[in-house]
Amino acid sequence: MSKTIYILNGPNLNLLGQREPEIYGHTTLADVERACAAIAAQQGFQLRLFQSNHEGAIIDSIHEARASACGIVINPGAFTHTSIAILDALNTFEGPVIECHISNIHKREAFRHHSYVSLRADGVLAGMGVEGYELAVRRICSLCAAS
Amino acid sequence: MSKTIYILNGPNLNLLGQREPEIYGHTTLADVERACAAIAAQQGFQLRLFQSNHEGAIIDSIHEARASACGIVINPGAFTHTSIAILDALNTFEGPVIECHISNIHKREAFRHHSYVSLRADGVLAGMGVEGYELAVRRICSLCAAS
Amino acid sequence: MSKTIYILNGPNLNLLGQREPEIYGHTTLADVERACAAIAAQQGFQLRLFQSNHEGAIIDSIHEARASACGIVINPGAFTHTSIAILDALNTFEGPVIECHISNIHKREAFRHHSYVSLRADGVLAGMGVEGYELAVRRICSLCAAS
Amino acid sequence: MSKTIYILNGPNLNLLGQREPEIYGHTTLADVERACAAIAAQQGFQLRLFQSNHEGAIIDSIHEARASACGIVINPGAFTHTSIAILDALNTFEGPVIECHISNIHKREAFRHHSYVSLRADGVLAGMGVEGYELAVRRICSLCAAS
Amino acid sequence: MSKTIYILNGPNLNLLGQREPEIYGHTTLADVERACAAIAAQQGFQLRLFQSNHEGAIIDSIHEARASACGIVINPGAFTHTSIAILDALNTFEGPVIECHISNIHKREAFRHHSYVSLRADGVLAGMGVEGYELAVRRICSLCAAS
Amino acid sequence: MSKTIYILNGPNLNLLGQREPEIYGHTTLADVERACAAIAAQQGFQLRLFQSNHEGAIIDSIHEARASACGIVINPGAFTHTSIAILDALNTFEGPVIECHISNIHKREAFRHHSYVSLRADGVLAGMGVEGYELAVRRICSLCAAS
Amino acid sequence: MSKTIYILNGPNLNLLGQREPEIYGHTTLADVERACAAIAAQQGFQLRLFQSNHEGAIIDSIHEARASACGIVINPGAFTHTSIAILDALNTFEGPVIECHISNIHKREAFRHHSYVSLRADGVLAGMGVEGYELAVRRICSLCAAS
Amino acid sequence: MSKTIYILNGPNLNLLGQREPEIYGHTTLADVERACAAIAAQQGFQLRLFQSNHEGAIIDSIHEARASACGIVINPGAFTHTSIAILDALNTFEGPVIECHISNIHKREAFRHHSYVSLRADGVLAGMGVEGYELAVRRICSLCAAS
Amino acid sequence: MSKTIYILNGPNLNLLGQREPEIYGHTTLADVERACAAIAAQQGFQLRLFQSNHEGAIIDSIHEARASACGIVINPGAFTHTSIAILDALNTFEGPVIECHISNIHKREAFRHHSYVSLRADGVLAGMGVEGYELAVRRICSLCAAS
Amino acid sequence: MSKTIYILNGPNLNLLGQREPEIYGHTTLADVERACAAIAAQQGFQLRLFQSNHEGAIIDSIHEARASACGIVINPGAFTHTSIAILDALNTFEGPVIECHISNIHKREAFRHHSYVSLRADGVLAGMGVEGYELAVRRICSLCAAS
Amino acid sequence: MSKTIYILNGPNLNLLGQREPEIYGHTTLADVERACAAIAAQQGFQLRLFQSNHEGAIIDSIHEARASACGIVINPGAFTHTSIAILDALNTFEGPVIECHISNIHKREAFRHHSYVSLRADGVLAGMGVEGYELAVRRICSLCAAS
Amino acid sequence: MSKTIYILNGPNLNLLGQREPEIYGHTTLADVERACAAIAAQQGFQLRLFQSNHEGAIIDSIHEARASACGIVINPGAFTHTSIAILDALNTFEGPVIECHISNIHKREAFRHHSYVSLRADGVLAGMGVEGYELAVRRICSLCAAS
Repeated sequence: MSKTIYILNGPNLNLLGQREPEIYGHTTLADVERACAAIAAQQGFQLRLFQSNHEGAIIDSIHEARASACGIVINPGAFTHTSIAILDALNTFEGPVIECHISNIHKREAFRHHSYVSLRADGVLAGMGVEGYELAVRRICSLCAAS
Repeated sequence: MSKTIYILNGPNLNLLGQREPEIYGHTTLADVERACAAIAAQQGFQLRLFQSNHEGAIIDSIHEARASACGIVINPGAFTHTSIAILDALNTFEGPVIECHISNIHKREAFRHHSYVSLRADGVLAGMGVEGYELAVRRICSLCAAS
Repeated sequence: MSKTIYILNGPNLNLLGQREPEIYGHTTLADVERACAAIAAQQGFQLRLFQSNHEGAIIDSIHEARASACGIVINPGAFTHTSIAILDALNTFEGPVIECHISNIHKREAFRHHSYVSLRADGVLAGMGVEGYELAVRRICSLCAAS
Repeated sequence: MSKTIYILNGPNLNLLGQREPEIYGHTTLADVERACAAIAAQQGFQLRLFQSNHEGAIIDSIHEARASACGIVINPGAFTHTSIAILDALNTFEGPVIECHISNIHKREAFRHHSYVSLRADGVLAGMGVEGYELAVRRICSLCAAS
Repeated sequence: MSKTIYILNGPNLNLLGQREPEIYGHTTLADVERACAAIAAQQGFQLRLFQSNHEGAIIDSIHEARASACGIVINPGAFTHTSIAILDALNTFEGPVIECHISNIHKREAFRHHSYVSLRADGVLAGMGVEGYELAVRRICSLCAAS
Repeated sequence: MSKTIYILNGPNLNLLGQREPEIYGHTTLADVERACAAIAAQQGFQLRLFQSNHEGAIIDSIHEARASACGIVINPGAFTHTSIAILDALNTFEGPVIECHISNIHKREAFRHHSYVSLRADGVLAGMGVEGYELAVRRICSLCAAS
Repeated sequence: MSKTIYILNGPNLNLLGQREPEIYGHTTLADVERACAAIAAQQGFQLRLFQSNHEGAIIDSIHEARASACGIVINPGAFTHTSIAILDALNTFEGPVIECHISNIHKREAFRHHSYVSLRADGVLAGMGVEGYELAVRRICSLCAAS
Repeated sequence: MSKTIYILNGPNLNLLGQREPEIYGHTTLADVERACAAIAAQQGFQLRLFQSNHEGAIIDSIHEARASACGIVINPGAFTHTSIAILDALNTFEGPVIECHISNIHKREAFRHHSYVSLRADGVLAGMGVEGYELAVRRICSLCAAS
Repeated sequence: MSKTIYILNGPNLNLLGQREPEIYGHTTLADVERACAAIAAQQGFQLRLFQSNHEGAIIDSIHEARASACGIVINPGAFTHTSIAILDALNTFEGPVIECHISNIHKREAFRHHSYVSLRADGVLAGMGVEGYELAVRRICSLCAAS
Repeated sequence: MSKTIYILNGPNLNLLGQREPEIYGHTTLADVERACAAIAAQQGFQLRLFQSNHEGAIIDSIHEARASACGIVINPGAFTHTSIAILDALNTFEGPVIECHISNIHKREAFRHHSYVSLRADGVLAGMGVEGYELAVRRICSLCAAS
Repeated sequence: MSKTIYILNGPNLNLLGQREPEIYGHTTLADVERACAAIAAQQGFQLRLFQSNHEGAIIDSIHEARASACGIVINPGAFTHTSIAILDALNTFEGPVIECHISNIHKREAFRHHSYVSLRADGVLAGMGVEGYELAVRRICSLCAAS
Repeated sequence: MSKTIYILNGPNLNLLGQREPEIYGHTTLADVERACAAIAAQQGFQLRLFQSNHEGAIIDSIHEARASACGIVINPGAFTHTSIAILDALNTFEGPVIECHISNIHKREAFRHHSYVSLRADGVLAGMGVEGYELAVRRICSLCAAS
């Protein structure tokens, strides 16, 4: 069975570390990848991190994960609230899924309170900053190891 | 006048026959295309089937259909419920449009009950399984023949 | 097992071919019956068409169908949107049910967008004109043959 | 052209004069018919008054009116708020329609504030007591005379 | 006791007969006053017709009516849907009140379906054209005579 | 004063004991009538049980009860949620009314949570199975005896 | 297996017989306990009645019932409409649960129409006065005896 | 500092001048670009016009504008109403943003009344036809000059 | 035909330049008038600027404009969101209407997001500061010149 | 600094002491003014009481208060629920504002539960009868003295 | 008759003077009690102040007040918005009730705008700071003296 | 500064490991405490775990934490969705707060989708099983160490 974990990131997350640092901090996606890879390696897993501003590309990645990944950590960015297509793609994936948001979306505008992805995700975390990715990776490793 | 019918398919339909077979069955899009082409040929029409996980690519196809197609059968998948842009694209197409859903979307989650595409479609069918494509093609042939 | 298909029609459909021809056309229910019977006969089935302006009489027919029919095609007319009692009656019927609307109800007033019958129907079609009955009969024959 | 006006009455109006007299008074439907017939006669029209507790029977009457009446006064009773089928039937009638409620439905429970029939009626009156029928007849005579 | 009936008219009704004649016709308020005065005189009442585009002036008139009028016919125009202040003013008036709308407000935009004035009015009529004023005067005369 | 209790049953209840036995059990209406009659007889009352799939027929029965019954137990079936006309009919009945549902409607679809009949009923019970009829008869006997 | 039935009562029910007697009557909880104990004893069951104004204490009692009771009759008072915690506690109890309200909550303010407890209760009754407790005990005895 | 203004255009705007000319007129995007460039040049600015049917491509352009543009004029087309991702992208841009719609979206379907982009835009205009682009460019030049 | 443009201003706009300058700036209505008159003069038009805190006075001005003006620019202030009467008055005006808001109302409280005036206005602009009046005048001149 | 307090009163309050005395009592505005002036004098303040049925006149008064008053007590009457223009006017006033309602508006019709004025008022009181004005004056004196 | 006034305080008010002083100030409940007792004593009343974080304890206090108090001032804190049980308890108390909130709850989050307690309270005040308790005590003394 | 972390648990969590193990597993709160204490100790922190079915007791604990704890992990159970009082208590605590739910509340009933506590919590996690407590402790340690 695959020992690879996918970390998928939606729109505008390529700017992590550059945009609105008072909300999102200065860490970049590359930093996130390094920190998460270290944690995953301890549990015997490897990572593949992907980011796109295109909903279709995220869906393509999830389809790819059907064959290549044992679990998915996904920060869908703004697609969280609008993309039923990503929900449907995740529904075709059989391994565990953890949804991760850097900020606490429940404290922000009302249209950020609902998540289509949460209808599929096994676990959800928000407002943990970029440390949230690490916690998500810990959990996905537990789940992949147990399944 | 064009004698070509476009069959457009939205996100995740590339997995038809693979994902959630208890809902969607084992038939693939290629099977659908073959069956529909046979029916269309009887009426003197030919088919072009297209699928994409990218909303923009679906829109591009509809624009292309403005010049190349006499009618459109569309299964917009999850974009049914979220894409006003596809609705607007269809509004620029002058021939008949039939909307087709494999499952009965009215029995599923509430967010699948509303369709932007239905505001433009001449006819709509849902819950007919993949046979729905064939029924849609029968209807679009009648309409194209009559116009 | 029964080889009879019931085609049930709700209020005002007795006027088909007479009222609002710009929406509903000039075909009458008798014409519909003849066209559908021909299609059904090809598949080895026979039809019984019934119309009433009385909700109770529609329910009585559905109860009768429990013993006499293998499948039901129903155009509930305005009862589509208001009759939980017809939904409950259909829930007592074990064969396949196809719901059929001549016009595209999703383009009309908001109160015509919701259908209680769709909560039970296996398949639904709307906006196909009176040809919709024929497509519905094709589908119900497939389903009855398969069950 | 027909010189007959139909006065149609929905459920429980057979009890007019007997039930809840503090709201509806002591006048009966027969009294209403006599008073209205006198007014209509002055304008050269005759009346036919009908009452039923069965929605289907009201619809049948409206269908009959298509051939026999020049105008309809209708007090749909509780069907006002629930019957799309009666609205559809009235939409098949080409003459003028006046909707009449004895009590002021806008002062009563919220579910009595919406009327499907008002979507078709040319004029609506409520809260005029049984005198409302007379005013409605005056208006329908004007309209029938003018058309 | 006073034998005077007030006919109050809200904003834009000074243009009656000039604006949107396809909805409101060519009759002016002065014509309305003449026709209504004739009907009232037959019952032993006299009229005072008032129009203003100022909500405050309508309220002042209602206050004046507390001492000078036995009944009020009011066409509040657009204030129907927005003025709680007029409702409160009418609540201080003890005689009968009839609310009158020239067009059938229930067929127009949704924001015209609710009337604050209907919460106080004894009777309401809409869609009777300018003849509605005459019917309203007939009713208010009955009520004033009976009280 | 009358010593008769009416037990009225709405649409589809004629199938009691036949349809969906996992929800409704195997007892028939005739069984219900026997069990209830025994309980009523102990308190000096007799029963009349009526069922119809026609809303109008239920209303006719309630009108009949105005003269013939001291109390009404009613299971309106699906009319519970849609029939203002039955509510209005019950409002013309002066004795006690108990509303009875075999299943717990509050656990089912949202559209079954609201009851027009509860706005009139003195007592309501749901989810007691067919034993609910017996409990309802016990209560109606207490109320009729006390009034 | 336990032969004890718990009758749990929420806030303000300690005042039963003292407060608002026009709604709740003059019977006290102690009277209720006596009457219900007699009925239960006939079926071979014993009762334990508990009341508290503290939500937490009600939850503690339900937890206690997990080991000590075969069934629960609960009148949650105002907690009916607000306490998800009580619903969750009842979800941990495996025996039958009957929900009982003295007044007909469906006739009162809108915020009393929804019950969280009904999502768990097997049966619900309301508006039966204090006799409702007795009917509830009859039912819970049937259910406990059958299980 | 950059003296370049981006004019971004969402889905279907490539058809400007071709589709629904009764709403959108016959001017093309190239015509718009020419007219706007002339106005901008007068103020010492240059333009870059971009159009895509792909939401992701619009986001990519906005990211590019972070380094290359002093201001953005955006007509998001149908993405106006659905794309939180574009809103988030614009939130990462520090210069002024003007939102521009050719038609008056407030007169069209209800789902076109809400704009996510307006939550970020400094100014918004709608219904000015293609002249709206010119007015938007005038304003963005003022703002860029002032900042 | 008239060459006069009306610029109408609703409540509190007399304080422009004095109140909340961080939102509205320091320019006064007189400054606005001067700047706009210059632009209009270039196109061969003259202006008349009017302000009132009285809804009725705004309506009176619009009525006056029916005879005296070729176009209207209106900043209805708070009446934007509450005055159906002003909408109705504008509906009686046949020339073009541009609606202008100094601040971006879509970024403010929810009750400022809806505009009755937008249902009539040909074009709408918001958040352009006082420069918005100038842009509105440019547009209204184009429209008046073209009509 | 000004030592004057404005007491502003909206529509129908000129009838205080005359209308609906069971709700509003027999005290007149003149009585209110006398009682409040005495309390204010003790704290070294003087009063100016104003009433109008015209929203525009209330706004004019608030504008006047910008220069002449240190604090405002306002009973907006029915404008409480409908006037954003008064809210905007109060937002231009820099001193303290107390909102005062004679009756408890939260016990009355739902449309009286929301207050635009409360979005600006420092304090709000309701249901204190006319004594509420005195309590409001006590508070405004404290606030004016402290500022 | 009792001359004691209860001042009841809900959750977190024990922290008054310690938490969020920018909203609530530095005064403690003990300070409030002293100031209010002085005012009450002038009118011949004595006070009892109670605070609890337990809803049940507040209810118990209200029950105690039935025998011991002539009036209640209550600041229910967060229970204002969630406790129907406290409303029910207050409904069993026969004397006057004044509801008091230190901050203006109408300016805070939407879920703080509704108060169950206001459905029972005779008067309500909010946003008066801790001085609000004193104003409430003045009013309750008036009411107790008058009853 | 304190080095103690509070882990607070709401209603029914005392049953952890006993109730609904298919949702919540077999781990008990004592097991949770042991596992979390080990993680905290590694970071130099100690734990205090508290559980109550009484909302008031949870509030008391949070008040105690104001002086004794550097951070709070809270699983409010059903109080998540109903307790504004707990939100208010947490608002008085100055250190970091992490909200933790064992199950994914977003996949359960709609009334479990909203959390008052999330309006204050810095981070939120759900659906991580009891491992969620450990992840929450990791995060709170990071935050306490950083502050």
